[in-house]
Amino acid sequence: MTLDYFFNPRSIAVLGASNDPLKLGYEVFKNLKNYGGKVYPINIKEEEVQGVKAYKNVKDIPDEVDMAVIVVPKRFVKQAVIDCGEKGVKGIVLITAGFGEMGEEGKREERELVEIAHKYGMRIIGPNCVGIMNTHNNMNATFITNAVKGSVAFVSQSGALGAGIVYKTIKENVGFSKFISVGNMSDLDFGDLMEALAEDEESKAIALYIEGLKDGKKFMEIAKKVSKKKPIIALKAGKSESGARAASSHTGSLAGSYAIYDAAFRQSGVLVANNIDEMLSMARAFTQPLPKGKRVAIMTNAGGPGVLTADEIDKHGLKLANLKEETMQKLREFLPPMAAVKNPVDMIASARGEDYYKTAKLLLEDENVDILIAICVVPTFAGMTPTEHAEGVIRAVKEVNNGKPVLGLFMAGYVSEKAKELLEREGIPSYERPEDVGIAAYALAKFGEIKNGNE
Amino acid sequence: MTLDYFFNPRSIAVLGASNDPLKLGYEVFKNLKNYGGKVYPINIKEEEVQGVKAYKNVKDIPDEVDMAVIVVPKRFVKQAVIDCGEKGVKGIVLITAGFGEMGEEGKREERELVEIAHKYGMRIIGPNCVGIMNTHNNMNATFITNAVKGSVAFVSQSGALGAGIVYKTIKENVGFSKFISVGNMSDLDFGDLMEALAEDEESKAIALYIEGLKDGKKFMEIAKKVSKKKPIIALKAGKSESGARAASSHTGSLAGSYAIYDAAFRQSGVLVANNIDEMLSMARAFTQPLPKGKRVAIMTNAGGPGVLTADEIDKHGLKLANLKEETMQKLREFLPPMAAVKNPVDMIASARGEDYYKTAKLLLEDENVDILIAICVVPTFAGMTPTEHAEGVIRAVKEVNNGKPVLGLFMAGYVSEKAKELLEREGIPSYERPEDVGIAAYALAKFGEIKNGNE
Repeated sequence: MTLDYFFNPRSIAVLGASNDPLKLGYEVFKNLKNYGGKVYPINIKEEEVQGVKAYKNVKDIPDEVDMAVIVVPKRFVKQAVIDCGEKGVKGIVLITAGFGEMGEEGKREERELVEIAHKYGMRIIGPNCVGIMNTHNNMNATFITNAVKGSVAFVSQSGALGAGIVYKTIKENVGFSKFISVGNMSDLDFGDLMEALAEDEESKAIALYIEGLKDGKKFMEIAKKVSKKKPIIALKAGKSESGARAASSHTGSLAGSYAIYDAAFRQSGVLVANNIDEMLSMARAFTQPLPKGKRVAIMTNAGGPGVLTADEIDKHGLKLANLKEETMQKLREFLPPMAAVKNPVDMIASARGEDYYKTAKLLLEDENVDILIAICVVPTFAGMTPTEHAEGVIRAVKEVNNGKPVLGLFMAGYVSEKAKELLEREGIPSYERPEDVGIAAYALAKFGEIKNGNE
Repeated sequence: MTLDYFFNPRSIAVLGASNDPLKLGYEVFKNLKNYGGKVYPINIKEEEVQGVKAYKNVKDIPDEVDMAVIVVPKRFVKQAVIDCGEKGVKGIVLITAGFGEMGEEGKREERELVEIAHKYGMRIIGPNCVGIMNTHNNMNATFITNAVKGSVAFVSQSGALGAGIVYKTIKENVGFSKFISVGNMSDLDFGDLMEALAEDEESKAIALYIEGLKDGKKFMEIAKKVSKKKPIIALKAGKSESGARAASSHTGSLAGSYAIYDAAFRQSGVLVANNIDEMLSMARAFTQPLPKGKRVAIMTNAGGPGVLTADEIDKHGLKLANLKEETMQKLREFLPPMAAVKNPVDMIASARGEDYYKTAKLLLEDENVDILIAICVVPTFAGMTPTEHAEGVIRAVKEVNNGKPVLGLFMAGYVSEKAKELLEREGIPSYERPEDVGIAAYALAKFGEIKNGNE
């Protein structure tokens, strides 16, 4: 299924675009003004919205309209959907709330909207959602700030949490390719979106925040197919009994036993995250190639982080690689006597960019190594910044170029921000915590198995 | 034991203070120039260091010297320690490396330094360390940036990781009262420091990053005493077999089986952290009073985070409080119909500061509630910022004032930074992730039990 009219619409109408900064329709239109395609504001009262000529009705637009964003008050939604249908709109993002989440009557109204949409051949995302974003064409059809451009397609069943995560990732400079707030999933659901995102080249992985599924069978069938091509990472809220009870009162739908979800995910090749950071850490690993096995080499300029990372590697069933004698010998030739040449390779605090380059090169060339984790804590020598360490790793990766995945762990807060940016620009995901890089390595290895069917 | 000459020295000498920005002695002296007490640079060649009159020898200082920071090259260290002894210095922070971590000969040299120091009645922190900080009197006797002022005493066996954590906490605005890099622990060790920090009013909790202990019995004896008064949180690297092997090659000492450490920690009333964020999240909870029990009330403006937090609460053996019928009735009076008045209380996205105030008040007054977690995700109504939500919580806490702990979970990246600051200023720790606030609540409840001996 293509949902290109949602991801790359040639033209967009915003029903409810507003000049009043306190309305959501103000933010949505403001965000869409930067879009490369055509964007038309629809407002029954205004001649202009934010300086752009407005139309009274979507049908008045003298142009085809691929996608309509609806943010009008609830009582006008049904007519708006009919108007969109008559206009020949293909996709509707229905932000307005007050439907299925309100109870039985709302559910009935929601079904009616979907029936109308389908009659006209339209599909709906929402209602009761934050909207959708495509960072690669600068389309922000939501009322929140632009996410950072990246490789992860993030689909969230909770609008508010989804928005909170977007704000968090902006702060942490973690990038999304798409952000899709699915709301009540009256029409398009996780399954449909996974299917469409499987074909999306800008999305290297699909991250799902799930509260409850209505059609578990459909989800599993699609996930099984998609997960052979592209990694799917799911975070399911309502693990505990208390949480499940809370989730069921929240979504109105039965959250179901977590054990059932967990089993279903695993059977469908879905990687399971236990919290938001696990979800993001795993998903953003997939700018790297998949490893051939689970033997990890760790290089570091400080022992502690090497040990903490080895602990995480072990926790996820990965192995510390046994380096070849030859590799260790070559490491000994240039590293200081106090360095540890056995994996984890501790180059000690004096290590400079050149040491990172040489060590990364040797480890990548070692046939006992499947995955490389390059760690750098704040260099303790005056005048040194982690930038040169990042550059050393990048140089080695480019030279060796043998398709082994490399992950960074740069643990120095703001001191290493530039180094992290350098790595990310080369597609090397860079983390700040041992647990994050550990689960990222796990995700790469595990998805390698899933894809090859040797799970 | 008092270590006041380390934490509040009247005067400090820096042996090896330098004008060369590439030397550690440059950074150390630069950092100490802001200290309120007197700081004397010692440099054999220079008349002035960074604009301050320098002395050739510590003994030339026409004043008493409480603490000496030694950053001279290794070959001058022994004489420097002797000079300090003759001068009547009380405490030495020995930053210079190249001792016990280098092998047997280094260990012997280290022991000799300690013997000399003890002969003169001096104590040593280090060698091979980053130094120490007291944020409450602006003393930074390290070569790294000032930590944020706060309530946690952080003692790190790894200098580089300790520094990395300081940089991380600066970025995340998490505060330390003291930062002590213990290095090789030739003289003062975790036990001595815990004992001293137990008496330190600015430190509400003690966080330890441990790679290996030389004297486990001493550690346990002191921890047992201290943990009756003040929470101790330990993160031990080398949990896994791979990690332990790595740790043992790193510290030179036997890391020992993690199971033994884990049991020893628990027997001594030490709270065990599994990673850096757990350690920090637990430690900074203790600006709040201890709860009487483990029944947690959650209030939120979005269902998803409430569910994720309920999951975390459950994971740590805490309970979701059963709210009194009366509480729920009163909540129903002002919350919208779609709100959930059963714990977790979901005030839904329309909740404003006033709703946070009223809800927090009712939950704190409910006798079935021991701990309150106030969650706010990015408000989805234009013109609203999380600041008013934080203010509502603060107002309720001040009015009710019944000694129940309150924790914040403000999940909106940079959007909620001001709200978090407001909460922290009132001593209400505010987190960004459900797992962090969950383990913080656990730490408060658990330490309440440890202190009362009803573990």
